[in-house]
Amino acid sequence: MTYCVGLMLDVGLVFMSDSRTNAGLDNVSTFCKIFNWEERGEKSITLLAAGNLATTQSVIGYLDERLKASAERKPKILEADSMFEAATIVGETLKQVIAKQADQGQRADSAFNANFIIGGQIKGSPPRLFLIYPEGNFIEASVDAPFFQIGEIKYGRPILVRGFDYQMDFGEAIRLLLVSFDSTMKANLTVAPPLDYHCYKKNSLELGVCSRIEAKDDYFLAISNTWGDALRSALLALPTFKIDRD
Amino acid sequence: MTYCVGLMLDVGLVFMSDSRTNAGLDNVSTFCKIFNWEERGEKSITLLAAGNLATTQSVIGYLDERLKASAERKPKILEADSMFEAATIVGETLKQVIAKQADQGQRADSAFNANFIIGGQIKGSPPRLFLIYPEGNFIEASVDAPFFQIGEIKYGRPILVRGFDYQMDFGEAIRLLLVSFDSTMKANLTVAPPLDYHCYKKNSLELGVCSRIEAKDDYFLAISNTWGDALRSALLALPTFKIDRD
Repeated sequence: MTYCVGLMLDVGLVFMSDSRTNAGLDNVSTFCKIFNWEERGEKSITLLAAGNLATTQSVIGYLDERLKASAERKPKILEADSMFEAATIVGETLKQVIAKQADQGQRADSAFNANFIIGGQIKGSPPRLFLIYPEGNFIEASVDAPFFQIGEIKYGRPILVRGFDYQMDFGEAIRLLLVSFDSTMKANLTVAPPLDYHCYKKNSLELGVCSRIEAKDDYFLAISNTWGDALRSALLALPTFKIDRD
Repeated sequence: MTYCVGLMLDVGLVFMSDSRTNAGLDNVSTFCKIFNWEERGEKSITLLAAGNLATTQSVIGYLDERLKASAERKPKILEADSMFEAATIVGETLKQVIAKQADQGQRADSAFNANFIIGGQIKGSPPRLFLIYPEGNFIEASVDAPFFQIGEIKYGRPILVRGFDYQMDFGEAIRLLLVSFDSTMKANLTVAPPLDYHCYKKNSLELGVCSRIEAKDDYFLAISNTWGDALRSALLALPTFKIDRD
């Protein structure tokens, strides 16, 4: 499993992913699930991947190969003139990879499905954020739906819904995401650190801070430990239910 | 979908269920999913049901019919000499109902699966709480796993994990459950009020307070409204992440 979140904020875009992959419960590895491309001063594009690892790596592989290969090998993601076009390229590539796997060769027990979140900015347009489905189509974030989650989304959703604020700065956004990831990791062993993130600053048109938070990171441990207490305190501050009300 | 929780506390057992059922997204109804049997001074048994409604109603139907019918119609749930036996009766009945549906007649798109939580007390033994699987087998709650959830369990789990306290009284338990149910209902339209609950008092050997909390219940609305603020305050009280730490 996997857990990835993309947030659209006034200050820019924030992406975070865990790094655990598993085939069954006894075959666990660490893989980076966040991918960045940039053309300084022109565009910055970030992709978060969830689902079948062979599928997502294949999609990333095609996207990267095309960039290195001769000019004829298209479509190149860094040649996209809009984030809509970049999302279309990823969606089409994803659809092709899944179709290729499903049609030929050995049958697998599990589907080859995958989801992506793609976000970034291309000169001349504001930052945009999309969620891409295995079918290759996608939806865009908006004021009403300002963030996307993929993978194991349920445990960490309530705090995102309640805690999200479009006016957050990057530090507040990472704090919110760490609480959401912590709730998820406490419940599901197939989501685990290290956590990779990228904070894209609006109109910078280059990659922002890209870094990794390890399991033993002091700040993360502090959040994880104090959040439980904070939650309990918040709960205890609510009025008690009176059982014999009737 | 459905959301049901059974808690094992020092003061007794607490059961809560939502009451929404749906076949698809456009066929929504309200059904009670909590069922109680008692023999005053001897035993009190409560069942929570999640899954295929025809299956769960069929199981309850068989259990009820046997109680009304002649002495030969066995096994009767109120004749169980232990909660283990009561859980076995429910598990066997569930297994038979699923097998009967799956083997004969029309094929359905969805499985006929269901889960139950059963809890209660029979004279001479302490209160016990079990989770019953569609296969008819079951597991028992313990100090390490003092509550069970069935149905749409993920959204409401983080607060249960953090907020559960074996020493809670009934009022505090209902408060915790309402927060857990509220988180779930905010995320999943197929879980909805009214919420039914039963607080079984340890060693009472009779049904405790059984009641229903409606969507417009003042207390529930207050919890729902203030919890969002409480959660945000708890989040803001955590230290902010410093983006440029390196």
